[in-house]
Amino acid sequence: MPGVQSSLNIIHLGPGNVGKAFLRILLEQKKLIQSVFGIKIIVSGIVRSDKYLFSRDGLSDKEIKKVINKDENLRWLNTPGQTHIKQLMRFIPKKSVLLDTSASDKTVDLLIYQLERGGFAVVSNKKTLISELSDRKKFNPFQQSFFYETTVGAGLPVISTVKDMIESGDKIEEIEGCFSGTLGFIFSELEKGSPFSGAVLAAKELGYTEPDPRDDLSGIDVARKALILSRLLGKRISLKNIKTIPLYPEEMKRLSADEFLSQVHRLDSGYKKRLSNALRERKTLRYVAVVTKNKTEVSLKEVQISGDIGSLKGPDNIIKIRSERYKANPMIIKGPGAGIEVTAAGVFADLLKIIRILRA
Amino acid sequence: MPGVQSSLNIIHLGPGNVGKAFLRILLEQKKLIQSVFGIKIIVSGIVRSDKYLFSRDGLSDKEIKKVINKDENLRWLNTPGQTHIKQLMRFIPKKSVLLDTSASDKTVDLLIYQLERGGFAVVSNKKTLISELSDRKKFNPFQQSFFYETTVGAGLPVISTVKDMIESGDKIEEIEGCFSGTLGFIFSELEKGSPFSGAVLAAKELGYTEPDPRDDLSGIDVARKALILSRLLGKRISLKNIKTIPLYPEEMKRLSADEFLSQVHRLDSGYKKRLSNALRERKTLRYVAVVTKNKTEVSLKEVQISGDIGSLKGPDNIIKIRSERYKANPMIIKGPGAGIEVTAAGVFADLLKIIRILRA
Repeated sequence: MPGVQSSLNIIHLGPGNVGKAFLRILLEQKKLIQSVFGIKIIVSGIVRSDKYLFSRDGLSDKEIKKVINKDENLRWLNTPGQTHIKQLMRFIPKKSVLLDTSASDKTVDLLIYQLERGGFAVVSNKKTLISELSDRKKFNPFQQSFFYETTVGAGLPVISTVKDMIESGDKIEEIEGCFSGTLGFIFSELEKGSPFSGAVLAAKELGYTEPDPRDDLSGIDVARKALILSRLLGKRISLKNIKTIPLYPEEMKRLSADEFLSQVHRLDSGYKKRLSNALRERKTLRYVAVVTKNKTEVSLKEVQISGDIGSLKGPDNIIKIRSERYKANPMIIKGPGAGIEVTAAGVFADLLKIIRILRA
Repeated sequence: MPGVQSSLNIIHLGPGNVGKAFLRILLEQKKLIQSVFGIKIIVSGIVRSDKYLFSRDGLSDKEIKKVINKDENLRWLNTPGQTHIKQLMRFIPKKSVLLDTSASDKTVDLLIYQLERGGFAVVSNKKTLISELSDRKKFNPFQQSFFYETTVGAGLPVISTVKDMIESGDKIEEIEGCFSGTLGFIFSELEKGSPFSGAVLAAKELGYTEPDPRDDLSGIDVARKALILSRLLGKRISLKNIKTIPLYPEEMKRLSADEFLSQVHRLDSGYKKRLSNALRERKTLRYVAVVTKNKTEVSLKEVQISGDIGSLKGPDNIIKIRSERYKANPMIIKGPGAGIEVTAAGVFADLLKIIRILRA
């Protein structure tokens, strides 16, 4: 049949933790994909910031396993940069996938190049989607070939659901949600009686926070996700337009990470008081993102303790979507919104969407 | 480009309430679809049980509006049955959509015919999916061209999410959920102090129940949805293999609908007692479907009142998915799981999936 493709080449940027978990799923599933969809997945390139592997006809399973296992005998080539990667891309068919699981802010050009030549792209890398408006606009024509489900809520079907609602003519009125497992954990601990500083330190010890916990407490990561959702709703805004209220005062910004950790207990009494005031009204505290037509805002809020957001436990994420059709009762999606395995599975599910398109 | 399609023909079976709402969305969205995807949607046929409209090149918007408005001046043709519909289907391209929003159990043959010739099908009609195993097997090869999202949870993204999880290599361990808005409403009313009979009558008055409320109270409709999910997980079972515990005793089966309604108060004290026993342990009552590898069961259960299922309010549906990857914390999708508008929007979202496939 004309137009039906029997193989699909991938160039994979950023084989970090999520990237390696993705490659593991790929090795496990590729036989099944070939038998169900008749499409052979060919990993033509794996690219790190400084080096790469490439074979137009596909890296062997053995080589891919070596990447997963960080095998030191693997002979990476040095990459002289972006232009070189573009040259590699020209060796593989246009209807291929550029897959970005890196954390780099330098992949936007490559992604645009791939989309403009008629290819597909899948990213778990949020940085590609939060770039300045001028950059972001370049992605707009490619809403149907650019997949980024895991940038909000990891494997939870958030982006695809909102997209389906919009494209079937629904009008989204409000998206409200908790998109930080780390902050969810911290405020669940507070509810259990832990002081704020204790909750922050516990989160750090469990590996839930960035090395400097202020990267989480600043709310920036939540603001990024709110930005991605806002732009999905067609709003023309940038990160700087989002009202983001951090969980520590201005004057603690200039401290070193260690200084911050040794002084974070200064915030305990404030949060204790705010929580006990909230509890008196059967409310609790949650760090909430709100996106409506007129505002995009992320901040700590008092919410009903028995409500969907208030009853959220530990590191789970939640998204509540109110629309013309889901007005009285919103649509709610909830579950683990971070984690290597669920993110990698979400990236693979995005790849599946492309495979379904190609096998038609 | 070869294989790229610039139009998509639809034959629509069953323009009832959901069907008409679907046609309304279609008329509103088709311009946008054409500009975004470059695909013109052509409604070639609209078929009722006894009559039909057909035009290979497409019914006009005016004619479709007349169907929506039940215009009596519309000149339907009499249909001499299934074979005739198949003949009509032969007039339109194979890569078309047969869309079934009827409640008929006689469309299975037509759907199989459409799928076997390489076309697509979308159904909101559960009857097509609960047919005997021998029939159901015929659908198996077409998991990628057969869409039935709205048969469980209406517009909630249930089927597509489970499908994505399975195809990305996750192992589903348990699906648990409430799939009856009617029964959800009844047990929410009980919690508020209403007697069982009062809740049933209120549900009937609000139009939530079938004319004979036993059609809801029997649990059969929930069992059908549990069957659809079980088969999605690859289980080879039929409706008769599902343990279904109705909400009224055996001896009330032989009553007429009116007799049942006048005697339903006999069940009040039993439910009152069961609920107060449950409440003493901070539990409440919910009619729950459970699907695991080894069992598929629908019955009234005592569940934690503060849990996800116990805190479900009124007519909302909920689905909880536990899998290898979503183990400690399940993935949860919640919201209105019935209703004309959300079901029609879900049918349209299924159509969009096909459009995305074809425009690649």
